[in-house]
Amino acid sequence: MPAPAFIAGDWGTSHLRLSLCDRGGRVLESRNGPGVGAVKADVAGAFFAQIEPWKQYGALPAVLCGMVGSTIGWREVRYLPCPARPEMIAAGALRFEANGHSITIAPGLSCRNRLMAPDVMRGEETQILGALRLEPQLAQGRQVFCMPGTHTKWVSLKDGVIEHFLTAVSGELYDILYHHSVLVNSKETVDGAAGGAVFKRALEKIKLYPDGELIHLLFEVRSGQLKGEIKQRDAADYLSGLIIGQDVSGAKRFFRADLAESNGVVVVSTPRLGELYAQALRTRDVAVRNIDGDTASLAGLSALYRVLEGVTDAA
Amino acid sequence: MPAPAFIAGDWGTSHLRLSLCDRGGRVLESRNGPGVGAVKADVAGAFFAQIEPWKQYGALPAVLCGMVGSTIGWREVRYLPCPARPEMIAAGALRFEANGHSITIAPGLSCRNRLMAPDVMRGEETQILGALRLEPQLAQGRQVFCMPGTHTKWVSLKDGVIEHFLTAVSGELYDILYHHSVLVNSKETVDGAAGGAVFKRALEKIKLYPDGELIHLLFEVRSGQLKGEIKQRDAADYLSGLIIGQDVSGAKRFFRADLAESNGVVVVSTPRLGELYAQALRTRDVAVRNIDGDTASLAGLSALYRVLEGVTDAA
Repeated sequence: MPAPAFIAGDWGTSHLRLSLCDRGGRVLESRNGPGVGAVKADVAGAFFAQIEPWKQYGALPAVLCGMVGSTIGWREVRYLPCPARPEMIAAGALRFEANGHSITIAPGLSCRNRLMAPDVMRGEETQILGALRLEPQLAQGRQVFCMPGTHTKWVSLKDGVIEHFLTAVSGELYDILYHHSVLVNSKETVDGAAGGAVFKRALEKIKLYPDGELIHLLFEVRSGQLKGEIKQRDAADYLSGLIIGQDVSGAKRFFRADLAESNGVVVVSTPRLGELYAQALRTRDVAVRNIDGDTASLAGLSALYRVLEGVTDAA
Repeated sequence: MPAPAFIAGDWGTSHLRLSLCDRGGRVLESRNGPGVGAVKADVAGAFFAQIEPWKQYGALPAVLCGMVGSTIGWREVRYLPCPARPEMIAAGALRFEANGHSITIAPGLSCRNRLMAPDVMRGEETQILGALRLEPQLAQGRQVFCMPGTHTKWVSLKDGVIEHFLTAVSGELYDILYHHSVLVNSKETVDGAAGGAVFKRALEKIKLYPDGELIHLLFEVRSGQLKGEIKQRDAADYLSGLIIGQDVSGAKRFFRADLAESNGVVVVSTPRLGELYAQALRTRDVAVRNIDGDTASLAGLSALYRVLEGVTDAA
């Protein structure tokens, strides 16, 4: 095995992904753990418990991104205001020593979005940095990124500068409607938004009613079941299609000018969510390229490591 | 006390309001109880337990409306399809005997709404019947009703005929976002949507961005708190303003033609919700008249009683 050089960690509210990497950023081993939301009391303790199996390699430096840098994380790292170059993330990172390890936490980004609301991200900035390393042509011209998740981010870049972004509460909305509303009987429905025929039907509905509000569209998930037009087991798929369809519909409107300058949308996420968003975007005649979210995170964290440790790309 | 003649009951998912009435529909006594959602196993038993104090007046007939006529209610009553005259409700009611009482349950209404989705109501049809009895001029020309609640109904009437309606999941959405999302820390926020300055600010935001999707507007409830622009205790008010504002915004668009023919909107609900919707509608330059929801229910149930029992209005 090549010599382990550092630990890369994408630590969100609900999930931790830790990778043991060599100097070149190649993954030697990976571990999954609980999000910072689940380890509130002692984030540092949770971190050291997770890396216990890697103790044998010495006190390796760690580079982390995500909610680990928030008020509910390990240490709070300020937001960099947009417009921001992903290369600025390294300079804005927080570095400290813990148990002999050098710990680096990436800063988040903030902006005033197109709805004139303050907006923030934590973790996606590192994925963008990574995506631009993986595919350098994305640092040229106008690029629109869609980064689906609990809080989906729509991001506009111009020549490698993150100009502004917009958050959709799509994942969280799906989750709480699935579990807590009368729309879905979650005990008798298959969760998972399989993206089949019923999901597609919801996308077509949204396309047909671009003026419709989600608040008026959602009730069909229930009334469709009452009237036998939606099977109970398909309710979650229809709900997922309405939410993702409406997210795409609104983003398409608010990023109209950006999309006119770009070659479609780059979707950065897990494969499953990436496929659902790609389907929704293609239904609205937007071209899509998918980049795997974990791969992008890791590329971003590796880039941060190289800058911070002064490792040249030739190393 | 005038002689008790019948029991009127508006029995929804979350609340029961029972009134002991004389032949003229005047309320002699009232009782509040749990909704059918809370007494799932034995709705009949819950009913007779509630009317126990009125046993002394004999086996009075009861006229009920709301979810008590649904699959989770006492007995299921079919939906009348729209267009429907409120006077047709009596003919569509289900009548049966129980413990010597004559029980009548009003039917719900169904339609294909303006988003081409099946739509249903239970209880509001009886409130509309009551509103038209209370204010007979509402049975003339075009009228648009807004009936806020867990599932808000927007209803269009022409010359006393209910032509179509649209459901917004506004109350339910507020409730589950308030209790289960990261947008509001419900433990440190005053619930109740007081309708003050912060509520008004959210309404203005919606007015300023008629193209904005709720899914993109909601995150400001959280980011505004992170950035110190919204106080934690005001988060629920801002959330309420966004949801009610968006509901009104979408309904205004989908009932554009109906509103052009009417003198504004008749809001039928509890006084508190009625005031919030009136504020939202006036922000969007729509004239509003409020009718108390309990008064409308009772007038509707009394009208049903009179028809069913053959009581003339002179009685």
